[in-house]
Amino acid sequence: MTGNHVRIGVLGCGNVGAAFVQLVTEQAAAIEARTGIRLEVTRVAVRNVSREREVDLAAGVLVRDARAVVDDPEVDLVVEVIGGIEPARELIAAALAAGKPVVTANKELLANVGAELYAAADTAGVDLLFEAAVAGGIPIVRALRESLRGEPIRRVLGIVNGTTNFILTKMTEQGADYSAALSEAQRLGFAERDPTADVEGFDAGAKAAIIATIAFGTKVVAGDVYHEGISGVTAGDIAMASRLGFVVKLLAICEQDASTGEVSVRVHPAMVPIHHPLASVRESYNAVFIEGEAVGSLMFYGRGAGGMPTASAVLGDVIDAAVNLSQGTHGSLGSFGRAVIRPIDETNSEYLLSLDVADRPGVLHSVTGVFARNDVSIRAAEQEGLRDDARLVFITHTAKESSLQNCVRELRDLDTVKRVGSLLRVIGA
Amino acid sequence: MTGNHVRIGVLGCGNVGAAFVQLVTEQAAAIEARTGIRLEVTRVAVRNVSREREVDLAAGVLVRDARAVVDDPEVDLVVEVIGGIEPARELIAAALAAGKPVVTANKELLANVGAELYAAADTAGVDLLFEAAVAGGIPIVRALRESLRGEPIRRVLGIVNGTTNFILTKMTEQGADYSAALSEAQRLGFAERDPTADVEGFDAGAKAAIIATIAFGTKVVAGDVYHEGISGVTAGDIAMASRLGFVVKLLAICEQDASTGEVSVRVHPAMVPIHHPLASVRESYNAVFIEGEAVGSLMFYGRGAGGMPTASAVLGDVIDAAVNLSQGTHGSLGSFGRAVIRPIDETNSEYLLSLDVADRPGVLHSVTGVFARNDVSIRAAEQEGLRDDARLVFITHTAKESSLQNCVRELRDLDTVKRVGSLLRVIGA
Repeated sequence: MTGNHVRIGVLGCGNVGAAFVQLVTEQAAAIEARTGIRLEVTRVAVRNVSREREVDLAAGVLVRDARAVVDDPEVDLVVEVIGGIEPARELIAAALAAGKPVVTANKELLANVGAELYAAADTAGVDLLFEAAVAGGIPIVRALRESLRGEPIRRVLGIVNGTTNFILTKMTEQGADYSAALSEAQRLGFAERDPTADVEGFDAGAKAAIIATIAFGTKVVAGDVYHEGISGVTAGDIAMASRLGFVVKLLAICEQDASTGEVSVRVHPAMVPIHHPLASVRESYNAVFIEGEAVGSLMFYGRGAGGMPTASAVLGDVIDAAVNLSQGTHGSLGSFGRAVIRPIDETNSEYLLSLDVADRPGVLHSVTGVFARNDVSIRAAEQEGLRDDARLVFITHTAKESSLQNCVRELRDLDTVKRVGSLLRVIGA
Repeated sequence: MTGNHVRIGVLGCGNVGAAFVQLVTEQAAAIEARTGIRLEVTRVAVRNVSREREVDLAAGVLVRDARAVVDDPEVDLVVEVIGGIEPARELIAAALAAGKPVVTANKELLANVGAELYAAADTAGVDLLFEAAVAGGIPIVRALRESLRGEPIRRVLGIVNGTTNFILTKMTEQGADYSAALSEAQRLGFAERDPTADVEGFDAGAKAAIIATIAFGTKVVAGDVYHEGISGVTAGDIAMASRLGFVVKLLAICEQDASTGEVSVRVHPAMVPIHHPLASVRESYNAVFIEGEAVGSLMFYGRGAGGMPTASAVLGDVIDAAVNLSQGTHGSLGSFGRAVIRPIDETNSEYLLSLDVADRPGVLHSVTGVFARNDVSIRAAEQEGLRDDARLVFITHTAKESSLQNCVRELRDLDTVKRVGSLLRVIGA
């Protein structure tokens, strides 16, 4: 950099990259007036240089070789919006080693090899910032990294996938079934043609790993995260939850046990009480709910995806890194030990379980016997329907996941139980 | 400071001060493990040294002379939690001039002479941080100062007073009238014996001035803020709003006109659509809703008051300032010009207005004539009751505040209008 002029090399020019370049162009004067820093995008690496683009770029800005952008002496700071693990990892490592701060929106990369890159940034003494990698435009990473550095955080609950929240909102408000709601989401561009990464909880799981790492200061990777998606959630489950005063949401849950330090990170559909702030997060919006010992409950709400919201988060990080660069300083996440992961089997929750049963004498007795033998205490039970349509719904007191899984296995073996329905965990009550 | 040992002088040891001292004691080891900085409270200035306190302090820590704490060579960083304008201003100015970073929770001070103190901090090259001054434990100041520095913010809507939100929640959910809800709030400790500062909007107005200053980068003081409280809101207004799909909230509203740069800052009861995220902020919780051009809608929710949540925000700032101190750097708000304030008369909104009228032919005609003459267009009208209990309710299209005020004056002069009820502005639709 020369003086307060910071030259940015952008790797990738898709949805987010193009929005970022546009935003820098529009806001550069206002940013300079406020911070004294003049931002300029000097290079943009793209796969296809000749494709038409919505953003106007000066001659020589678009290039094909991403590595050349990283190495270019006319690039002071690198923005990585390619996605995926390689070559993003290699490019970021090279930029950091060359003393260039990096801003990335790449959740997959950070959820797998984040700790390695954070350490590389610390060694090099430069910033590696990634607000946009979790919950798009919502400044949750900065809140956890900075505002809450001294706060003992016990639990983070996140609605961090817009696709599944959109689908569940349609199922809840319109009574749609899963496949109809998914089709609508695909038609409106909220879901991919292959929706697996979203609906089966992989995307939320990657974000949960990053959140847990920063919230607890301990290394959690995507492979540590238990995940269950929403494809098994039925319109009936949602209607039943609603009658009982709950809304079904796909939650990313990060917990740390205050005494043992063990960390549990999981993604699954959950029943959230109707008055809980997460219950009113509708459509494709995201929200992250934090429970701290001193600060109490906090929630951050906003757009978790989309070119412009994500680009806004990238720009916030770029300004931060540019200001630090001009002052010869940088932020640090500290170093992480490997987290001790508590397996899903050892977590505790309240559960809702529904069973289709034969309506005849002794059924309730045999079913409750299964719960009793597995040390699961019932808080409420109700029967719906009669004869061949009889359904029993149970809500348990707090119980251990492994006990519930044992119940489910044994219930499946009972003659009187025709079908074991969804097992929904109650969270936030 | 010596090495990474940062010694803190605390001015004031009330609710927040005592909670802060306790939190530092409990969290110091964890903070050192994460940041490398060892925090220690070395001095606490109090009016009455001999009074019993809940926090344990080493001999020599409690002193009576606040100025001596600021000047003490064993104090590297000053936390001001006395409140009020003097002597807080003088003490903070002295600390900054001595090169000591300051963390304050003092909204009254910042809403009146903030810009002067921000400039003093910049001149001295040290941090002046104040997360706890707005919305307690919610990290909204950092989000505006840092994450959103490059974001063109158009509007900020805040529920920033817990007392009034508690009262309005009771009125909404239990149908309580204002005085009963106020009594309950007082009994539970959510309202002061003299509730004026809260219920008439002064407290929210001070926070609005600080929010507007940071959000728009332009100097706004408490005296610039128009405010109306909730003491005139009736159970009937709330019930009517509810029938129409709205919730009544006391909002702090900060807007900037994108073309003229004019700023409007005001506090008044408003009708918020039931599906708006602010509508579900209940009890004494606070929330700040931000509308940005690129990022879209963001909301931050949490505890706006209370010793521990506020102390948590103070501690976040203290860690930030301590890390900066150890790196020889500091943050900056930039310098502010004076805002051009748009008077309330020139703001635009949709309005709800209720009138008690005589139920006889021609009433509606004479009333609608008043609206028409003042260029206010009616979106919906309904009549409730008959004869002596007849009430007309109007919702307008977007209109100018001065036009509505003219309507109210003229309606009061009509023979057929017995009483002009609340004028409620519709916000967030």
